[in-house]
Amino acid sequence: MATYFILLCIWKVYLMHLAIDGYGSDVEKLKDRSLLYEFLDSYPSALGMTKITEPKVLTYAGKVPEDWGLSGFVIIAESHISVHTFPDRLYINVDIFSCKQFDVGKALEDVRRVFALKEVKQWTMERGVDALLAQTVRVP
Amino acid sequence: MATYFILLCIWKVYLMHLAIDGYGSDVEKLKDRSLLYEFLDSYPSALGMTKITEPKVLTYAGKVPEDWGLSGFVIIAESHISVHTFPDRLYINVDIFSCKQFDVGKALEDVRRVFALKEVKQWTMERGVDALLAQTVRVP
Repeated sequence: MATYFILLCIWKVYLMHLAIDGYGSDVEKLKDRSLLYEFLDSYPSALGMTKITEPKVLTYAGKVPEDWGLSGFVIIAESHISVHTFPDRLYINVDIFSCKQFDVGKALEDVRRVFALKEVKQWTMERGVDALLAQTVRVP
Repeated sequence: MATYFILLCIWKVYLMHLAIDGYGSDVEKLKDRSLLYEFLDSYPSALGMTKITEPKVLTYAGKVPEDWGLSGFVIIAESHISVHTFPDRLYINVDIFSCKQFDVGKALEDVRRVFALKEVKQWTMERGVDALLAQTVRVP
């Protein structure tokens, strides 16, 4: 007589996404390309993430002169950190999207300190996919 | 006698961020660099957004072999579209972050169609900053 077992296998891709809107920042910090580059370059490793590109920082100026600002981006393993600044609005938005869990409170404080934010608003999203696979195994 | 008026001025930066997690996609579509590039290249103008960089698409392979995938990104005026695919998980995440309002339902349907998604989960965030400035104006 053969015996059968059911083998359960759980796999999971877990992603945490922290979106931050920051207000009342320092205009000089929001104009500072080096500060933004340095943040994008160093912050992934502070969170235990792995950069897979160099950061990219560029200046945008469009139809509404007061909406000019910097945009910065770094791709990390299957996720990213992005920043857009609006110096004339003293406003910034930062997205930290990671394939590893991280301390949201600490990240929020770090972003607040680096960009001298007076107020912040944040959204935290738990993203990803998981599944339970069941397989019947026959033991002779 | 002079007359005084109070002049009110409202300025606003309005940003809409749609985050999508898509499940049950077609593995071939999630591996297709050309499809992803074409999406990042053409979709901003379909939403009335202005690209300020060319799209960037790269392949990631890390410690967990099944978590390999494509990452793609395009910066648009003060915002961005990003995509990360996980072909072996039939999973994708897409962020459409725009300085213009757009039809969330249509964007969701477009993403669902392009990447052949069976199920989606989404988050919509209204981001940005506004302020009411009051100024006293003296009329002689």
